[in-house]
Amino acid sequence: IPTKLPNVTTTIFTIMSKMANEYEAINLSQGFPNFEADHKLTSLVTKAMQKGYNQYAPMPGLLSLRDIIAEKTNGLYGSTYHPETEVTVTSGATQAIFTIIAAFIQPGDEVLVFKPAYDSYEPSIELFGGVVVPIQLSAPNFSINWKEVASKITSKTKMVIINTPHNPSGTILSKKDMLQLEGLLKGTDIILLSDEVYEHIIFDHKEHQSAARFSDLRMRSFITASFGKTFHTTGWKMGYCLAPKDLMSAFRKVHQFNVFCSNHPMQYALAEYLKTPKNYQELPSFYQSKRDLFLSLVEESRFTFTPASGTYFQLLNFNSITDESDVLFSERLTKDYKIASIPVSVFNLNQQDDKVLRFCFAKTADTLKRAAEILCKI
Amino acid sequence: IPTKLPNVTTTIFTIMSKMANEYEAINLSQGFPNFEADHKLTSLVTKAMQKGYNQYAPMPGLLSLRDIIAEKTNGLYGSTYHPETEVTVTSGATQAIFTIIAAFIQPGDEVLVFKPAYDSYEPSIELFGGVVVPIQLSAPNFSINWKEVASKITSKTKMVIINTPHNPSGTILSKKDMLQLEGLLKGTDIILLSDEVYEHIIFDHKEHQSAARFSDLRMRSFITASFGKTFHTTGWKMGYCLAPKDLMSAFRKVHQFNVFCSNHPMQYALAEYLKTPKNYQELPSFYQSKRDLFLSLVEESRFTFTPASGTYFQLLNFNSITDESDVLFSERLTKDYKIASIPVSVFNLNQQDDKVLRFCFAKTADTLKRAAEILCKI
Ligand SMILES: CSCCC(=O)C(=O)O
Ligand SMILES: CSCCC(=O)C(=O)O
Repeated sequence: IPTKLPNVTTTIFTIMSKMANEYEAINLSQGFPNFEADHKLTSLVTKAMQKGYNQYAPMPGLLSLRDIIAEKTNGLYGSTYHPETEVTVTSGATQAIFTIIAAFIQPGDEVLVFKPAYDSYEPSIELFGGVVVPIQLSAPNFSINWKEVASKITSKTKMVIINTPHNPSGTILSKKDMLQLEGLLKGTDIILLSDEVYEHIIFDHKEHQSAARFSDLRMRSFITASFGKTFHTTGWKMGYCLAPKDLMSAFRKVHQFNVFCSNHPMQYALAEYLKTPKNYQELPSFYQSKRDLFLSLVEESRFTFTPASGTYFQLLNFNSITDESDVLFSERLTKDYKIASIPVSVFNLNQQDDKVLRFCFAKTADTLKRAAEILCKI
Repeated sequence: IPTKLPNVTTTIFTIMSKMANEYEAINLSQGFPNFEADHKLTSLVTKAMQKGYNQYAPMPGLLSLRDIIAEKTNGLYGSTYHPETEVTVTSGATQAIFTIIAAFIQPGDEVLVFKPAYDSYEPSIELFGGVVVPIQLSAPNFSINWKEVASKITSKTKMVIINTPHNPSGTILSKKDMLQLEGLLKGTDIILLSDEVYEHIIFDHKEHQSAARFSDLRMRSFITASFGKTFHTTGWKMGYCLAPKDLMSAFRKVHQFNVFCSNHPMQYALAEYLKTPKNYQELPSFYQSKRDLFLSLVEESRFTFTPASGTYFQLLNFNSITDESDVLFSERLTKDYKIASIPVSVFNLNQQDDKVLRFCFAKTADTLKRAAEILCKI
């Protein structure tokens, strides 16, 4: 029986987390916190189950949750999303991304993807017969040459995917970047998929340049967001997406036959929890102090770095340590030094190897100290 | 921007539940219980969240849950599913079905679908370029003419979808049916998708003829199952699928990029809860008494019926009441009589109208009595 995605294997996150377990390594590979979610939030799930929120939610999501999502987004970015028609709650941002691609990509459609890229984009595009047009960015700045982007846009370009703050690099797009993109797409029918799952994890008082801020981008954009990243609950698989009414209506046609709806008690809990803006407003300083702790310790090591501007990932360059490939070095780090990371080349075009590994710093201070201590010995 | 699924609108379940709310009708349309989930089960979710099960689960599911699923299935059906490689936990059975179709259906592939059919199958097939080959069954028996089925199998047939116990008819496939199907598929590469979400809701001491019981079916089958149906938690969106290793490995390639994994604390809770077989063994008598109550009351009405053999749906024939279409009659029932049902023609080929409406009896005795009282006045 012929299967699809012949070149796809198990996602690197599963592979590295498994290897971390096997070698009892500190797991800084797959991105997830190793500390507890807020007890207030988990208590709200209990309350929801007790109140009887155990049957199907409305297909696009609990309206009280969509209301508060729209309010928050519009407040932060000066947009005008309508909760009824322009917000849909999903079973995680990955499900939103898959469903957006499912709803729009037809055989032969071209999709511009900046590499390194989160590993779900490309197989999802391929599954629907789309053609990935990769644009490789490079360490340490991962800056985009917009002229190069312009040269890749053809009459077949159906979608452009951006991701800011960017996983795995920790860089962010500037207002200038967004304006360049807006100019490029103006007058076209190209859809923008703006993956903004780390929107609240941004440092040094920088401003998140959401596509929602730019009227000509907003009208053609899906924006994906993640409660897992924002509220330390990656295992709840809750997220959402935003889009103008017409695009959202096409999305929901597919969404209803993919998952139908998302977890109801957790939607109730998230709606209540979002009523306290402090719950996400404190995130930048919370993660910035983790980044700063980790970097202050790693400074003593032979790794070099540019501090992450956002996300909970930090790239470390190992050029002065070894000329092994990043894949081999990260394997050796896991097995011999008991620290698991992600080799960035697996997200690159032709496995371009910039000699950087990605470390997740969504960890307790104790874990970060233990990890840094080891990294300083290498 | 061209969108896909141009003929698809909002699913009938959402439409009818909305109409029920609007007219304050008793909602016997969309299938979900209006009573509480077991407090023991919801407490286990709380326990899981407190124990820290709030980050990503393993991509194919929590191993303790897969273990107990395999144990239960193998015990009930004499099969030999391996928890590591042949069980995957999903965000509801609908997500499993969508992902199975995504993983195997290529443009031009034919899929045999028995009508009336759950409304997610066909748009999902269409989305991947598959061709639905419909086989219409008819009230009251919905029996399958296997010669007709044989005549529809071609070299392009990639998949056959069956559903037993069957939504919306409440009928079940017999051992003889399954043997006929097994004979037909023997020696082919055809995949069987056996949607068995109501496996534990079966009446009159009948035996569920799972595809897992038939070795030549099992080796080519995906079986989908639903914790929502079994444990009165449709809003948790938890289910799973079973398949032989090779098929499952192709499934997981897509699954990991669709939802990545399912809700972790709920997986923990379900694993614990499944350790008490009574929790699903009592389901047949639980729902049989609801069916019997409902039917004993409706017996006094002008509706006629064949008792459901499984599922929590009962068809009622309204031939002796009106010659309106089922769509118009169900609308009138909702608006004027305050009882919402599902017109079965929406699941049929060319909207064949057998003059039957589907009523969900997963409701409290009080609700069933109030509903039956109204139905007796029509
Ligand atoms: C879905 S597992 C991957 C988690 C994540 O976003 C990452 O590690 O990049
Ligand atoms: C996913 S909503 C539909 C619920 C259901 O299975 C039904 O009513 O048939």
